[in-house]
Amino acid sequence: MEQNAFFKLPRLYVDSPLVADAAVPLSAEQAHYFKTVLRRQDGDSVRLFNGRDGEWRCTLKDLGKKSGFAVTEEKIRPQPEPSPGIHLYFAPIKKSRMDWLIEKAVELGATHLHPVLTQNTEVREINVKRLRQQVFEAAEQCERLDLPELCDMVKLQSLPADLPILACLERGNASPISTALKSDSVACILIGPEGGFTAAETAWIGQQKNWTPASLGPRILRSETAACMALAAVLLDRS
Amino acid sequence: MEQNAFFKLPRLYVDSPLVADAAVPLSAEQAHYFKTVLRRQDGDSVRLFNGRDGEWRCTLKDLGKKSGFAVTEEKIRPQPEPSPGIHLYFAPIKKSRMDWLIEKAVELGATHLHPVLTQNTEVREINVKRLRQQVFEAAEQCERLDLPELCDMVKLQSLPADLPILACLERGNASPISTALKSDSVACILIGPEGGFTAAETAWIGQQKNWTPASLGPRILRSETAACMALAAVLLDRS
Repeated sequence: MEQNAFFKLPRLYVDSPLVADAAVPLSAEQAHYFKTVLRRQDGDSVRLFNGRDGEWRCTLKDLGKKSGFAVTEEKIRPQPEPSPGIHLYFAPIKKSRMDWLIEKAVELGATHLHPVLTQNTEVREINVKRLRQQVFEAAEQCERLDLPELCDMVKLQSLPADLPILACLERGNASPISTALKSDSVACILIGPEGGFTAAETAWIGQQKNWTPASLGPRILRSETAACMALAAVLLDRS
Repeated sequence: MEQNAFFKLPRLYVDSPLVADAAVPLSAEQAHYFKTVLRRQDGDSVRLFNGRDGEWRCTLKDLGKKSGFAVTEEKIRPQPEPSPGIHLYFAPIKKSRMDWLIEKAVELGATHLHPVLTQNTEVREINVKRLRQQVFEAAEQCERLDLPELCDMVKLQSLPADLPILACLERGNASPISTALKSDSVACILIGPEGGFTAAETAWIGQQKNWTPASLGPRILRSETAACMALAAVLLDRS
């Protein structure tokens, strides 16, 4: 089978280890997806990844409507060496925009997702299970082999002063983010909430000795757009 | 009133000319928004822009639940000189993702939006009125003073061969988009449909003498994410 042909096989995330000759149990949702949505049957090839063991071509076995197995056949992509981390610090936003932010952060290579509480953060609790599901689905979709880590929520003023954070500020006179990036080292990006940082928060950010204010341009971007642009800046800087 | 204080005033797009001492009629939706949603009353200040005459502080007059006027008081931002255009050629996608694509394209500075029909384009008709409304709302939100033009739908193979199009291709070995951009001239970006260009389309794209294939990285981005990343690349290149 040609390398390119593998891309046409359906691809799902599993938590199980992926090694040679393993029969990986499918969840009820996964069995339903293969059997009922995609109409696959025993012997058909699919792809599995778990964020640790590369990507495997597997064949379906004992596939029912709510259960089944995928038997590992061959490793088709190795797990890549980790690249320098991309930490996205973001204030939780409302449901559909948050889903979108998570999906885009996965597509655009964030390695760590840190929800941050600020004064204007309207959404002060997050549904970890729901956000993890967004992470898995986005990784399945975009062919990514590693999975970003969803970290605990922190308060803005509890973020360590020694982190080299690029704080994306609007309506200031900060330098463009492209000039503030340092290639090939860990990138830490802070995106403000809907409504922006308060004046007190902006002043506090300016006092953090290792933090760098950065501008994303003259327009007022929504939080999830700002996250996309900042992540794109990191990727372009490294490309 | 300080410059920064203007930003707190609500801001709407109108089609009418904005000149000194004009009483600009509000639509039923706009009157409802000011009166009922924001609970403003006669004499309160708001901001209007029309994409041509800069941004004006206006005061409300005869505001009812479904009608009213905004009287121009002072021009608070001039209409900026047009910058080199950013043309986004994109295949229409399903409703909520299309809304997102339009919103993000407005936030990220696209000046012309061109729907393009490709073989894998599932959505083959667009609701122009709905998309225009997305453009207005996104421009209102992001403080933009100009409005991108929503252009007629074209077939991929009807795009002029002499346009300097950057064609964002996945799974090829094209150069990163950052190396393909030419600062300070018009940027034309082509984003593929969900499902990608067909092999025949990719080959046809490769034959266009003024077109440049460009890569957005190793992952398979959704159409709207690809649009965001490509537009961010243009903005960062110009910043």
